Amino acid sequence: MLIVMKPQASEEDVRRVCEKIASMGFRAHPMPGAQRTAVGITGNPGALDPEEFETLPGVAEAIRVSKPFKLVSREVKAEDSVIRIGPPGSDVTVGGRELALIAGPCAIENRQQARAAAAAVRKAGARMFRGGAFKPRTSPYSFQGMGEEGLEILAGIRSEFGLLIVTETIDPENCDLVEKYVDVLQVGARNMQNFSLLKRVGRSRLPVLLKRGMSATLDEFLMAAEYILSEGNYNVILCERGVRTFADHTRNTLDLSVIPAVKALSHLPIIVDPSHGTGKRDKVIPLARAAVAVGADGLIVEVHPDPDRAASDGYQSLFPQQFETLVEQASAIAGVLGRTIALDPGASVSSAAVAEKI
Amino acid sequence: MLIVMKPQASEEDVRRVCEKIASMGFRAHPMPGAQRTAVGITGNPGALDPEEFETLPGVAEAIRVSKPFKLVSREVKAEDSVIRIGPPGSDVTVGGRELALIAGPCAIENRQQARAAAAAVRKAGARMFRGGAFKPRTSPYSFQGMGEEGLEILAGIRSEFGLLIVTETIDPENCDLVEKYVDVLQVGARNMQNFSLLKRVGRSRLPVLLKRGMSATLDEFLMAAEYILSEGNYNVILCERGVRTFADHTRNTLDLSVIPAVKALSHLPIIVDPSHGTGKRDKVIPLARAAVAVGADGLIVEVHPDPDRAASDGYQSLFPQQFETLVEQASAIAGVLGRTIALDPGASVSSAAVAEKI
Amino acid sequence: MLIVMKPQASEEDVRRVCEKIASMGFRAHPMPGAQRTAVGITGNPGALDPEEFETLPGVAEAIRVSKPFKLVSREVKAEDSVIRIGPPGSDVTVGGRELALIAGPCAIENRQQARAAAAAVRKAGARMFRGGAFKPRTSPYSFQGMGEEGLEILAGIRSEFGLLIVTETIDPENCDLVEKYVDVLQVGARNMQNFSLLKRVGRSRLPVLLKRGMSATLDEFLMAAEYILSEGNYNVILCERGVRTFADHTRNTLDLSVIPAVKALSHLPIIVDPSHGTGKRDKVIPLARAAVAVGADGLIVEVHPDPDRAASDGYQSLFPQQFETLVEQASAIAGVLGRTIALDPGASVSSAAVAEKI
Amino acid sequence: MLIVMKPQASEEDVRRVCEKIASMGFRAHPMPGAQRTAVGITGNPGALDPEEFETLPGVAEAIRVSKPFKLVSREVKAEDSVIRIGPPGSDVTVGGRELALIAGPCAIENRQQARAAAAAVRKAGARMFRGGAFKPRTSPYSFQGMGEEGLEILAGIRSEFGLLIVTETIDPENCDLVEKYVDVLQVGARNMQNFSLLKRVGRSRLPVLLKRGMSATLDEFLMAAEYILSEGNYNVILCERGVRTFADHTRNTLDLSVIPAVKALSHLPIIVDPSHGTGKRDKVIPLARAAVAVGADGLIVEVHPDPDRAASDGYQSLFPQQFETLVEQASAIAGVLGRTIALDPGASVSSAAVAEKI
Repeated sequence: MLIVMKPQASEEDVRRVCEKIASMGFRAHPMPGAQRTAVGITGNPGALDPEEFETLPGVAEAIRVSKPFKLVSREVKAEDSVIRIGPPGSDVTVGGRELALIAGPCAIENRQQARAAAAAVRKAGARMFRGGAFKPRTSPYSFQGMGEEGLEILAGIRSEFGLLIVTETIDPENCDLVEKYVDVLQVGARNMQNFSLLKRVGRSRLPVLLKRGMSATLDEFLMAAEYILSEGNYNVILCERGVRTFADHTRNTLDLSVIPAVKALSHLPIIVDPSHGTGKRDKVIPLARAAVAVGADGLIVEVHPDPDRAASDGYQSLFPQQFETLVEQASAIAGVLGRTIALDPGASVSSAAVAEKI
Repeated sequence: MLIVMKPQASEEDVRRVCEKIASMGFRAHPMPGAQRTAVGITGNPGALDPEEFETLPGVAEAIRVSKPFKLVSREVKAEDSVIRIGPPGSDVTVGGRELALIAGPCAIENRQQARAAAAAVRKAGARMFRGGAFKPRTSPYSFQGMGEEGLEILAGIRSEFGLLIVTETIDPENCDLVEKYVDVLQVGARNMQNFSLLKRVGRSRLPVLLKRGMSATLDEFLMAAEYILSEGNYNVILCERGVRTFADHTRNTLDLSVIPAVKALSHLPIIVDPSHGTGKRDKVIPLARAAVAVGADGLIVEVHPDPDRAASDGYQSLFPQQFETLVEQASAIAGVLGRTIALDPGASVSSAAVAEKI
Repeated sequence: MLIVMKPQASEEDVRRVCEKIASMGFRAHPMPGAQRTAVGITGNPGALDPEEFETLPGVAEAIRVSKPFKLVSREVKAEDSVIRIGPPGSDVTVGGRELALIAGPCAIENRQQARAAAAAVRKAGARMFRGGAFKPRTSPYSFQGMGEEGLEILAGIRSEFGLLIVTETIDPENCDLVEKYVDVLQVGARNMQNFSLLKRVGRSRLPVLLKRGMSATLDEFLMAAEYILSEGNYNVILCERGVRTFADHTRNTLDLSVIPAVKALSHLPIIVDPSHGTGKRDKVIPLARAAVAVGADGLIVEVHPDPDRAASDGYQSLFPQQFETLVEQASAIAGVLGRTIALDPGASVSSAAVAEKI
Repeated sequence: MLIVMKPQASEEDVRRVCEKIASMGFRAHPMPGAQRTAVGITGNPGALDPEEFETLPGVAEAIRVSKPFKLVSREVKAEDSVIRIGPPGSDVTVGGRELALIAGPCAIENRQQARAAAAAVRKAGARMFRGGAFKPRTSPYSFQGMGEEGLEILAGIRSEFGLLIVTETIDPENCDLVEKYVDVLQVGARNMQNFSLLKRVGRSRLPVLLKRGMSATLDEFLMAAEYILSEGNYNVILCERGVRTFADHTRNTLDLSVIPAVKALSHLPIIVDPSHGTGKRDKVIPLARAAVAVGADGLIVEVHPDPDRAASDGYQSLFPQQFETLVEQASAIAGVLGRTIALDPGASVSSAAVAEKI
């Protein structure tokens, strides 16, 4: 059930609707929009009677929501969500007209490597830095990340380079630690249906980057996001990173059709990871272009100062120079769609440069 | 084995190499390039001795080819193939800097429908017309196409609108008929490993549009093309049209990563079919944009004058107005890559218009 | 629409129903059952009026068929079909309580190899011999089969060993040749939706073994069979041979759940090919056991007198001794289900031996 | 690296090898076998020198392990592992000649339902009871299980019926609670690569039932088990429960070929879940038969006293009477393979009854 308030409804009206919902033993999710506020109801075992709500002051209508997902649905919130990243005052966002650019190495290996990567991606214009401190690896004998020391290095990158930090959190307890250091909590593909973790990040104050599972259907992907929203955290960024198929010319098959499919059903932003989505360095730039062209809200890209010596995923990491090329080409394509990539003001790849080169 | 001739080798030199190969009981495939000619050898059961050829006049070197495919390989021909379409004098091509645009209805239903579709796609700039006269359908009780009457309608479209015709041929005998009427023979996804048909179109004088099978690996796709080339027809256009996966939000999963993967291995052009690749009208334009951005050499799109009354595939056919939008957006993205879409001179969507609108 | 005749309906009654259907411009498919005859109607563009038929003498009821497939459906014929193989007087069947056993090499390589294989499989009890004369191969440069010479060898095997012959036909024209020599026409997985070939074998007097396509859904599989039945050939044997998935420990993923799924929907028999279904010799026997346990109507197995020197598929072909083991184990499991494997009377693996060994 | 001790090596010899490994900064995993003990080494970044160990007393040889997995590998332990379940003195095992039978409802709904299910499955011979107290559900609004109250009910089932309890644990913290109540910790398919959970159950004293992830390759499946063993818990039971493919006639595609594939590589037992593996009640018995026939070490089956009113998965749960049929048929097939199903002594389905019925 979704309660849509009238445009002129007061805060008092919204409060009264929420109290009514709580008194029935359910959970109210007020979602202020540009035009008017909607209030989602969750926890109700079956259909509710719209009349119970439509008679309250300020209520425009009560709508039965037909999809299995509610809070992530456009039925509940028609406008695109724009997620603000970083401390108060930060103007970095994901969603909306500006495309987000997140880049950095697969794993933080040491301070020097992290600084070199940060310098490179910032030079090319990225405003967010990715880097794993806790790495889920197929083998227990592979490098599992630097742990808290890696988080400290990431915090140093933020101070020194002004980049906002995106890193993966791997379990509820680990989340307590990670959220002290970073700006965006990443939930990896293997954990997309780790519901304990989803609930935990749903109670975080930080935005969440949720990667699609390797064999997740669209419904399962959106329901995973619904877990996070249902706990009260509405700041979820979806991420397509390739799915598992029979095709063997790439490590995963990047499913770009999921971008318009998500946008038709949900107000949440969705970005694309062409690095994991292809698993091959020489496919990253073409697929990054395609991701922007299809309508993604941003890119997350692996860049390493010395890919051939990377502790993990080196074969899919771009050289810094390649990343600059990616930014130029992606910016130009964004321009065709009437969008821009939000670049760091001091970036070598300026909008002017892009316009000139084409 | 591939014999690479010296740039200054004479036709006589090439002829002598071919005779040598024939005398050994194998088949020679001379492939003239812009710089120099290469001669592929097929039919040899095992490795040959390079010295047998390197001592002949005009031969630069003899190279063992390591991939299972030979004639489609870049090892055999480094430069992109540009396939000329249509009667002598036609300037329509696929491959190279200009992107090809093929559009029309799924099936030819009657003359009126075909003419309305042709008028619409030509207005938007397409220079090639697609339309099925023989339709492979999952059910024996579904409309199977108009047959030869449909081919006659297609021939009429060519005369009246100056559009070159692409249509599907479904078996070797059928090919005898179809090649009398059309400009490009299409081999459908379900027939990608119908080797009898591949061999038959390999003996045609017409270019072949070969669609990727629903579960074909890249190697199988290129080997299917190799069948055609090995019969002597080097004019093959590959086409990605989506593969079958667990994902259910589109009818097929369009695998755009196969475009750069093909380009790395083969000199053949590859285009994209976003209509079958998604199976949903509202996904066609975004994925068409992405296909151009990833580097495809063209698009084949279903357009119907009245999609809601189409005899087949109406739900994935564009309205004429939508196709104009597609052409505008695809042209703009092609521009970013330094390419253009080859539009009919009288098209409503001119390059100037594109430039202006963006 | 399906017309179900009364148990006591006369042949004249059935004839009259068929004439009525023909007079309406549709096609009648009389299908005699043990209890009573049903008449399927195909060719009707939409729903028919049951009353048009229910008033005819001998008609019990006229039923609208809800599935896309008709003639293959249990709605049309409730009892299991039992397909008779071989010349008049042969008692070899597929379907029913006895399981069929088809075995032999992937390809016929020469007379000696074929005879050795035939002797081995007959010794183990097989009554049908498989062997390819025309081989669809991924590469045009691979061995494509011996052609008509291979068919002649197969005919010799029939004379000498009394084995019935199953071989693949690859296109409509080729079918004219193949059906002169063999007892069962096989349509391979790559040709499951080669509708020209399906129609051609649908006009043959020989039973057809139809292999499931690598990415065919159950509906597509049954619709492919429907093509054959709709042309008048009701003697179709389905065959599961593995589907294409992400899993890489076998060449294909054998989908044994399709056996009960087919049996719920269709009266046609279905057998299993554990050789292609796994692509690995050491998996063939366990999966053959599982196929019998799940309820398959038979097995088709690759056996080669000298697998390590096979011209194709040697890595998945059993040694003769292994095939005897397979027959013993499969027979024992068939016994648990109250079924038997139809073994050649002179076989080394007798039912008694099986009972004794367990 | 794997150190294989001589048959006559003393405990002191083994201890000395372990100390040597520890002194090098690596981890020793002594694994006693029936014939002799092997000691696995993990934590070593690269290859070690065999001579360092082969000179120690009692050492037969030091072998470099070539697979990515070590402790789960047959290279490390050639004999099948037999996992003992339950308190000291229990004779319930998984692995070896006897097949294990685990049955019960998807979720514990209340004491009455659990008792009815327990009575039914015990009557049919099961010695282990499954039932979820914590349910990972696609939707946050679906029934998530009874939590600790459900565990208490399960403990009651153990006391009253003498059934050993298998239940799912969903995160590391939850594991602290669950292991107080049950006999086997289940890790669900969605958590197969939840490495935090794998490490936690690897430190438990209880056996672990590890389900294959929906798109897990064989290597990934075994590596997930390796995580558990590498923490010191060698009591891991693998479970095939279907993988995700394009096929839509079952909810998942049960990949029975993985059973012989696992057995070739690993000493760990593997059982099959035909309930989730098909998702359809009428497919459960045929696929259970096939699982036994292919060589699985047991079955885990959903049985509900009233499936049509089940809180979850009712459509795939067997009626009690159907479960008895399953046990009879599975027992008979096990007999063919020279195995038995370990049935409760008081079961209605006795071995004698089985023998009689067939």
